[in-house]
Amino acid sequence: MAADLTAERLTETHRPTLDRALEAIRSRAYWSPHPEHPKAYGENAAAEGEAAFEALLGTRLDLGQPGTDGWAGNEISPYGTELLLEYPHPDAEVLLPAMRAAGVGWRRAGAETRALVCLEILSRISARTHEFAHAVMHTSGQAFMMAFQAGGPHAQDRGLEAVAYAYAEQTRVPERAAWSKPQGKREPLELDKTFTAVPRGISLLIGCNTFPTWNGYPGFFASLATGNPVLVKPHPRAVLPLALTVAVAREVLAEAGFGRDVVALAAERPGEGLAKTLATRPEVRIIDYTGSSAFGDWLEENATQAEVYTEKAGVNTVVIDSTGDYRGMLANLAFSLSLYSGQMCTTPQNLLIPRDGIGTDAGHKSFGEVTADLAAAVDKLLGDDARAAALLGAIVNPGVEKRIAEAAGLGETALASRSVTHPEFPGTTVRTPLIVKLDGARKVWDGAAAEPAFLSECFGPVAFAVAVDSTADAVELLRRTVRHHGAMTVGAYTTSEEVERQVEEVCLEECAQLSLNLTGGVYVNQTAAFSDFHGSGGNPAANVTLCDAAFVANRFRMVEVRRQA
Amino acid sequence: MAADLTAERLTETHRPTLDRALEAIRSRAYWSPHPEHPKAYGENAAAEGEAAFEALLGTRLDLGQPGTDGWAGNEISPYGTELLLEYPHPDAEVLLPAMRAAGVGWRRAGAETRALVCLEILSRISARTHEFAHAVMHTSGQAFMMAFQAGGPHAQDRGLEAVAYAYAEQTRVPERAAWSKPQGKREPLELDKTFTAVPRGISLLIGCNTFPTWNGYPGFFASLATGNPVLVKPHPRAVLPLALTVAVAREVLAEAGFGRDVVALAAERPGEGLAKTLATRPEVRIIDYTGSSAFGDWLEENATQAEVYTEKAGVNTVVIDSTGDYRGMLANLAFSLSLYSGQMCTTPQNLLIPRDGIGTDAGHKSFGEVTADLAAAVDKLLGDDARAAALLGAIVNPGVEKRIAEAAGLGETALASRSVTHPEFPGTTVRTPLIVKLDGARKVWDGAAAEPAFLSECFGPVAFAVAVDSTADAVELLRRTVRHHGAMTVGAYTTSEEVERQVEEVCLEECAQLSLNLTGGVYVNQTAAFSDFHGSGGNPAANVTLCDAAFVANRFRMVEVRRQA
Repeated sequence: MAADLTAERLTETHRPTLDRALEAIRSRAYWSPHPEHPKAYGENAAAEGEAAFEALLGTRLDLGQPGTDGWAGNEISPYGTELLLEYPHPDAEVLLPAMRAAGVGWRRAGAETRALVCLEILSRISARTHEFAHAVMHTSGQAFMMAFQAGGPHAQDRGLEAVAYAYAEQTRVPERAAWSKPQGKREPLELDKTFTAVPRGISLLIGCNTFPTWNGYPGFFASLATGNPVLVKPHPRAVLPLALTVAVAREVLAEAGFGRDVVALAAERPGEGLAKTLATRPEVRIIDYTGSSAFGDWLEENATQAEVYTEKAGVNTVVIDSTGDYRGMLANLAFSLSLYSGQMCTTPQNLLIPRDGIGTDAGHKSFGEVTADLAAAVDKLLGDDARAAALLGAIVNPGVEKRIAEAAGLGETALASRSVTHPEFPGTTVRTPLIVKLDGARKVWDGAAAEPAFLSECFGPVAFAVAVDSTADAVELLRRTVRHHGAMTVGAYTTSEEVERQVEEVCLEECAQLSLNLTGGVYVNQTAAFSDFHGSGGNPAANVTLCDAAFVANRFRMVEVRRQA
Repeated sequence: MAADLTAERLTETHRPTLDRALEAIRSRAYWSPHPEHPKAYGENAAAEGEAAFEALLGTRLDLGQPGTDGWAGNEISPYGTELLLEYPHPDAEVLLPAMRAAGVGWRRAGAETRALVCLEILSRISARTHEFAHAVMHTSGQAFMMAFQAGGPHAQDRGLEAVAYAYAEQTRVPERAAWSKPQGKREPLELDKTFTAVPRGISLLIGCNTFPTWNGYPGFFASLATGNPVLVKPHPRAVLPLALTVAVAREVLAEAGFGRDVVALAAERPGEGLAKTLATRPEVRIIDYTGSSAFGDWLEENATQAEVYTEKAGVNTVVIDSTGDYRGMLANLAFSLSLYSGQMCTTPQNLLIPRDGIGTDAGHKSFGEVTADLAAAVDKLLGDDARAAALLGAIVNPGVEKRIAEAAGLGETALASRSVTHPEFPGTTVRTPLIVKLDGARKVWDGAAAEPAFLSECFGPVAFAVAVDSTADAVELLRRTVRHHGAMTVGAYTTSEEVERQVEEVCLEECAQLSLNLTGGVYVNQTAAFSDFHGSGGNPAANVTLCDAAFVANRFRMVEVRRQA
């Protein structure tokens, strides 16, 4: 190892954090080493971070990778700026063998050193959180504060959580065992055994547009910590946050005495379909993917040489039966629908409300009143353009606007989506949520020839207030939705223990994560690392949860060498 | 629960065993609660077991399953007897929903109760080990002692190991967590969280002919202990051992107050291809399979709705560089090649020997001498027909005999396969190993247009003594073999630390389990539960090892319910 990053220094700096993370995944109590508040990063951090981001614009991020056969990159910020950045485009025939070669030393490093090097990477990323925040903001369209928190500390938490799981998993089997089998009066049979965690091969991360770091870090760090070289193929609209991540990782690897090529970037040319080409390479043995169900399904069917971890589309439902805090419920839902213009895989889409209304602490509320009051709550939350823009962020791509228009034609509008003028970036497309009232009578979805529109994912600021005949029908529709269309999140509001039990039972049967009666500052679309699972991995929306033991346990294998003692 | 199997009684009887098994998978030291010696089962156990087996012949094993639309079964013992047993053939449209319905109570039982019920199933199977031994013997063709040990205690060990892994994995996340996130001067955000292990769905076990219980129990118990209903589709030539297992499981489940249909049998009609039909049913979410690579590949490509765990074919290699115990090596190899007529997925096939010979404690031995001495060692081991039959067992199916004949034509014979007359079952096909000398010069396998025959699996009593130009070439051929053709086992004999390091490095790189310099009573084709991994899951021979955390971690998912505190 190079002088700066000795094993001793890595241990001293990061072993306590690793131990604390290991404790956190066991207790699942709140913990994070990464501050959420921008001011926690030092007096000059904001200005320096912004300056660092701006200095990147118009440059070529030359990572010094072997097998670079050209340059690619055409990101345009949802806030209007052309980033004009260029990134290395790979010749896989050269880059992949170089990654394999670099991987040998990384495998030999062992689980603890790999974990500590990963923590050093994360801590350098953490130190540059302001710069990353701008990179996430100007690729995903998230508002600054969200890009800062979700793209910074929360993503770093998820990365650290994956490192902790990976370390825990690799060290569950002892490095050595003495095995002695009694043979009655004869001498026992005796063997010395060693067990070594070995990686599967090259791991391919296929990044997404909306949460490049948050959704990317679990797979990136899970594979890296288990010894696999990681090739990062970002979404072409959101390269920068992952390119910076790769740059930091390569720098740390080299300082710690490993080959930089353990981590590499693969930027793609427009329309090239690079993910398909890379995903089916024999050297690629693990794939992490977040994105459309169509491409996720394609990967699962075609990349059979690899372990494929996918987060795809789902239809998130909230069952509204009754509440003891009507205003709290409305405020909580309004925020959930608005945050990042509903462009989260966890945003509620279908609000199932009994046609005859619901009981609340403010008296009985009819279906029409609930939807009108929710619309009013959203309006109140987003009444001020500056505040609205800070919550909504920008529309990530033109497809989202098109879907808003189409959804508006599906039924009666409870709340129209309006365009907000961004105070800082006037040309930006900022849209408030649309709420459409639809008929959710049982005949509409139970055995109907055609699936109703609300059973497809409508990604973006669109919610459907679905009038159902009863709470029992809502529960049954929830079951059907999760089973056939998947869900990253389920919410429910009820004061009835019986309804609570029914909804919980459906979530256990169909494998969905449930948030009950959220009326305060926690929202159904947010999960906290070390404590909450993101998705269940057991319904069609995803085959993984970020993060758990299953997410890491098959990224490496144990090789046993046994010798006669 | 019914009176006999209360939770208290299950805990009292089995919790200590579960705890001991949990300790064993952590330490990986020798342990087994299942005695290997037939006499350990009581004075009358042998006679009673044989009588119980014979009483089964010619009967219909009516398991009382819903959706039984007929009867199937046409097993003929490799030792000659027609078993004339009939088993239920399923109407999946009826049986699978019944299994799902029964599964609800099984899910609710929780990880500990499920583990204890599994241990009760195993202990009842253990008590009937003599009966199971005859069932395994007369379906697999294993000799009695092997059927007894591998089909009895060793298989039960593997089942118990899977239960321990499943329990450990499900209890790594706490059942509840209190989460409190500080908010500066404001009140903290507080949530109560519950975490519940839920099963994926119906688990399908597709059994094999040669080791119905040993290869079947890990998947069976891993799925059952993680809450999944298990449908067992045995190999049509080896139904009885798994049918008895299903019968015991259904009996115990009912006594413990659960639906019997949590476990069911699916016997198939000749040529029906029932495994394909069942494997692609949407209710089937997990598949365990041992058998041909062709069908394993088919499952991986077509049963995309399920997690597919496969053990397929491989080409097992022994690198023979040098030895400090020439006689021990020859004796050890002779036994490995002979045991169960080489009809084990772990039997060595290719013995890579330098063309110029090897150094030994008995002086330099030429390639010809090594092969001749090995042939003599096999001859000595199998010289007596009774002893030979007790080691070789019967040829499991006519395909094996055909392969022996074909392999004999590939090169010069070092040892011809001879037919042995079985002293007890005279009509039985018993064959000693064939050893064929082949040219393993680098030009034969490195970049050659056609793969040499020794790079395909030749299942049965066939070994190839492959003359290589050097040990370095042997190591390189080993690498190529494992990478492209897979291996369940690798062996090596060497007195050179450098060669040992090279072979070890190849096994780490290509992910294969290595046995070094075995010259005593442990053989490369045997693995011990709780300590040895069976296969690595990281090369083309298998995607699992029986058993480890990865084998169980994805058979269930954690559902989280969070409530505002």
